[in-house]
Amino acid sequence: MSTSLATNSYADPSRIQALEDRIKELEQRLSTLEERAPDDRVSIIIFSGDLDRVLASFVIATGAAAMGQQVSMFFTFWGLSVLKKDTQLGGKTLFQKMMAMMSPGSSQSLPVSQMNYFGVGAKMLRSMMKAKNVSSLEEMIALAKEMGVRTIACEMSRDVMGINESEMVSGIECGGVATFLADSLKSRTSLFI
Amino acid sequence: MSTSLATNSYADPSRIQALEDRIKELEQRLSTLEERAPDDRVSIIIFSGDLDRVLASFVIATGAAAMGQQVSMFFTFWGLSVLKKDTQLGGKTLFQKMMAMMSPGSSQSLPVSQMNYFGVGAKMLRSMMKAKNVSSLEEMIALAKEMGVRTIACEMSRDVMGINESEMVSGIECGGVATFLADSLKSRTSLFI
Amino acid sequence: MSTSLATNSYADPSRIQALEDRIKELEQRLSTLEERAPDDRVSIIIFSGDLDRVLASFVIATGAAAMGQQVSMFFTFWGLSVLKKDTQLGGKTLFQKMMAMMSPGSSQSLPVSQMNYFGVGAKMLRSMMKAKNVSSLEEMIALAKEMGVRTIACEMSRDVMGINESEMVSGIECGGVATFLADSLKSRTSLFI
Repeated sequence: MSTSLATNSYADPSRIQALEDRIKELEQRLSTLEERAPDDRVSIIIFSGDLDRVLASFVIATGAAAMGQQVSMFFTFWGLSVLKKDTQLGGKTLFQKMMAMMSPGSSQSLPVSQMNYFGVGAKMLRSMMKAKNVSSLEEMIALAKEMGVRTIACEMSRDVMGINESEMVSGIECGGVATFLADSLKSRTSLFI
Repeated sequence: MSTSLATNSYADPSRIQALEDRIKELEQRLSTLEERAPDDRVSIIIFSGDLDRVLASFVIATGAAAMGQQVSMFFTFWGLSVLKKDTQLGGKTLFQKMMAMMSPGSSQSLPVSQMNYFGVGAKMLRSMMKAKNVSSLEEMIALAKEMGVRTIACEMSRDVMGINESEMVSGIECGGVATFLADSLKSRTSLFI
Repeated sequence: MSTSLATNSYADPSRIQALEDRIKELEQRLSTLEERAPDDRVSIIIFSGDLDRVLASFVIATGAAAMGQQVSMFFTFWGLSVLKKDTQLGGKTLFQKMMAMMSPGSSQSLPVSQMNYFGVGAKMLRSMMKAKNVSSLEEMIALAKEMGVRTIACEMSRDVMGINESEMVSGIECGGVATFLADSLKSRTSLFI
């Protein structure tokens, strides 16, 4: 742009108006991007009820919380066993009773995904972890709670399996897939375990 | 900035030019960010052929579609059984025949990942879902199609397993890992199930 | 805006100052967004030691690398078998010995997740892949290395299982959950396999 032209356009107030318009548009586009950007957030679906996989989910969840992330854990299907404290058969249908009897009654009795052999694998893994001073699953669950990890029990799974409020540890939020997705869609990392 | 200085620089057309340059750079950086930002998109790999895991994938897929996300489901390996309508042994190698005979012939015969006992677990789960008015897998598959969920069958798995076009339900797109990744890299949430 | 008003405000140096302030704020907000945006990066946790799932992880990892993504593979728990070349029982506790004897000694002896039947399934799958000219797992591992895929062995799992440096293939980085998360939180796609 030649100096004379610049001087000309400088004399033209529409030049400043044009700048103002471009800035306004930039501000709007930036606001849109900011709203759409992920939060510092990690979301995990725990579908599995295997001790080894559940342990992995808590190691990741507490690790992410320690790194300043908001963490949501959504427990569904076999993963619901982690949130149970007890099994009650009253009020269940036959199939619900059968499933309850064959599922772990609490986090304490989760099997491992391989080499289970009637619970030997889980005892062995817990003992190996203790020997190396790795926190137990129950310690990790308590730590996650302390760190403010959001724990959600899948409503639909609970309903299908007939798991009552009184069978679950207290203070657990219930929610559906929309609850999980609302967090997950704003997360930097989402995992299905 | 003092008024006299401001007045001075105001007299300088290069000051407006400098603003224009900064705005131009902002516009370019913003365009780059906008192009790189994720879409409203969710991508799911369904590797498993277990009824319970496949159900979870469709609950998430249809839930995400209902929340306005573009959804891609990429079926690979055991997950291909979901897209089968039939098993044909003609034209298959011995190993392909063996795998075909030991895999479910369609979504109707998927086993559950735990407590299967020759199909009892799957029947039990389907019955429990029906009792609670939860949609069946087949209803969810139809719903996903209706909602525009993109369904991709993994080409490499199909090729290795020798699954023919005629064994699969109609209207299924085929693709490779690049097809999945192209969607996944633009997704807010990607899951491997 | 009327011309007279524009001319008025044009005479006011504070108008340009205001533009400069808005641009400065835009530049700061944009820098924040740019820092927080994901890299061209894919992160995968390989928890499973099943041949079929491990194959899927390498197909995705090498595919993503081919598409220009930085790829990190974090091997934990049963997935550590992929990185083993050998099993040594010396220096292990009883439980560590038992786990070592029941785990695959290297990538060559990974079982499949279904239809394993004492290794027949894995041999069958490898043979079917070869018939279709699909790379073997060992070729994919070499390819991933060549493509610069970052391979991390989970320190905690190694420690709990008592896996020694000398049992593992050379050149493997060790790290914890924070190592994985640092990459994963900057990734476009993260998967748990």
